[in-house]
Amino acid sequence: MPKNRYFWIMHTFEELSTLFSETFEKTHFPKEPQTLYEPNNYFLSLGGKRLRPVLCLMANELFGDIHPDAWNVATAIELFHNFTLIHDDIMDKAPLRRGRQTVHSKYSESTAILAGDVMMIRAYEYISRIDLALVQRILELFNHTAVAVCEGQQLDMDYEQRSNVTMEEYLEMITQKTSVLLAASLQMGGILGGGSYGNLDLLYQAGKKIGLAFQVQDDYLDAFGDPEKFGKQAGGDILANKKTFLLIKALEDARGGQKEELDALLAGNDPDKVNRVLDIYRSCKIDDWAIRLKHQFLNEALRHFDDMAVVSKRKLPLKELAQQLVKREN
Amino acid sequence: MPKNRYFWIMHTFEELSTLFSETFEKTHFPKEPQTLYEPNNYFLSLGGKRLRPVLCLMANELFGDIHPDAWNVATAIELFHNFTLIHDDIMDKAPLRRGRQTVHSKYSESTAILAGDVMMIRAYEYISRIDLALVQRILELFNHTAVAVCEGQQLDMDYEQRSNVTMEEYLEMITQKTSVLLAASLQMGGILGGGSYGNLDLLYQAGKKIGLAFQVQDDYLDAFGDPEKFGKQAGGDILANKKTFLLIKALEDARGGQKEELDALLAGNDPDKVNRVLDIYRSCKIDDWAIRLKHQFLNEALRHFDDMAVVSKRKLPLKELAQQLVKREN
Repeated sequence: MPKNRYFWIMHTFEELSTLFSETFEKTHFPKEPQTLYEPNNYFLSLGGKRLRPVLCLMANELFGDIHPDAWNVATAIELFHNFTLIHDDIMDKAPLRRGRQTVHSKYSESTAILAGDVMMIRAYEYISRIDLALVQRILELFNHTAVAVCEGQQLDMDYEQRSNVTMEEYLEMITQKTSVLLAASLQMGGILGGGSYGNLDLLYQAGKKIGLAFQVQDDYLDAFGDPEKFGKQAGGDILANKKTFLLIKALEDARGGQKEELDALLAGNDPDKVNRVLDIYRSCKIDDWAIRLKHQFLNEALRHFDDMAVVSKRKLPLKELAQQLVKREN
Repeated sequence: MPKNRYFWIMHTFEELSTLFSETFEKTHFPKEPQTLYEPNNYFLSLGGKRLRPVLCLMANELFGDIHPDAWNVATAIELFHNFTLIHDDIMDKAPLRRGRQTVHSKYSESTAILAGDVMMIRAYEYISRIDLALVQRILELFNHTAVAVCEGQQLDMDYEQRSNVTMEEYLEMITQKTSVLLAASLQMGGILGGGSYGNLDLLYQAGKKIGLAFQVQDDYLDAFGDPEKFGKQAGGDILANKKTFLLIKALEDARGGQKEELDALLAGNDPDKVNRVLDIYRSCKIDDWAIRLKHQFLNEALRHFDDMAVVSKRKLPLKELAQQLVKREN
């Protein structure tokens, strides 16, 4: 394998995803107590895109061959992400995740609390294996990110109880709950690759924008996606009065009779609620606005990649991935 | 302050407890989101003996002046302990802790899950501040201990569903759930003090035995303690059919009619259940046995301290503390 600074090996998202899965899909937990670890193994077996660890590996490859510790960091990130899913599912009372039972509904709430706890500690175990030259920097960033994700989840729950959430507040919440983990995944990869401070900052900013674009697409698909491709009934967010980019923008933009109709629909349980809200979205052109907003975030992310002092060819896999993420239909 | 190896300053438990509380009782959390952090500040304000951090500081002082990082480690230990209490209270459906509302009963279960999560991450933030020469060793021990505590909690919940828990299983569960954190607190202090591997191992063994003695005393007080001094109604464990040293020993020792009576009492809700079970305990001499067992564990701990290659005078505060812990009446 050529070690020359200009000829290190680079991989596509699919290749890194396969490589990561091969490492990740070994068992992370001992056999006993089976009542604690079987739920964790079950949850990890539900799969997922493994997006965050692959972002870490890709960012590492911007600067050089994959650092041996990148596998530890990527694993820690994915375990941490799964910990947040297990606990969020309890708080959201979600019965299903990826079409399968959530941990608390398959086992019990107590089991899900403890399984999540031990999943998080396991993430820190992978962090503790990192080379001494890097461990403190990664650990600090990891902690900082973990706190932000918890704060984002709390804000999300707080906003469910409020009717007057502003776009600024929603952006801040999504940034904490979703974007900073993508940003930190990229930045950790950059740290492992030995990126300069300037490049590391740009990676973080790009990750935040990718997260926002990702969330706009998520909110858009829930309302306007093809239910067959999206894999769940469209309009779930509308039925649950969930704060989304679309709803907050519609509440800002709707005027007169439309504003009154939207308020009434949110307050009631009209059997045709989904379609009537979608009509308002369309007549206020919220759908077009969302697509523009998504591309705005995407373009900002791409510009951050452009601004990095790295050979352009190296940036291609990450830029392609960012574009795919906001084009996805599920 | 004399820095000579033989003349470093030593403190009593009370002094260290005061010193630690002064550091610890500053605010660990930012103001916002107040819905997340106010519950944590509330819970920490309930106080406690701060036993584990002080054990860490005392073990440090066996070998030299308190290492500046000992305050970070001690704080991390206490925050971790409080995280386990917040989550355990949810799982145990406990309405009160130290006579005040638990987090989930004062706020909500979701808040308590997230508040606990962020308390644990905060503990890791203190670990990340440790000197590079020590961070990996402390982090590994911390993770290892954290996993064991979770496993112990899971075993505790599992055993609640079983009628045939053996003494060996109970000892293993208590070791994980309670003893290893005391053991690790002592060992981390020893690491910070620069103790040899032999001394560190003895500290760990002593901590495990202190934990077991502590639990025997806890189980004993719940059955035979003076309710006025103990601060809660005696017999709570009996009413809840909780596995304790006393119950498991009684189930092993009771014979014939007594065995049948005990089984019947456990299966039913006799209004005089507490007194009748206590009568069986007394007639099987379970009370005397528990006191002997407690002293056996205490003596083993003291012997481990004796075996340490440290000037005897230095060991006195720790030995006194161990004796006080098993003499306590609340």
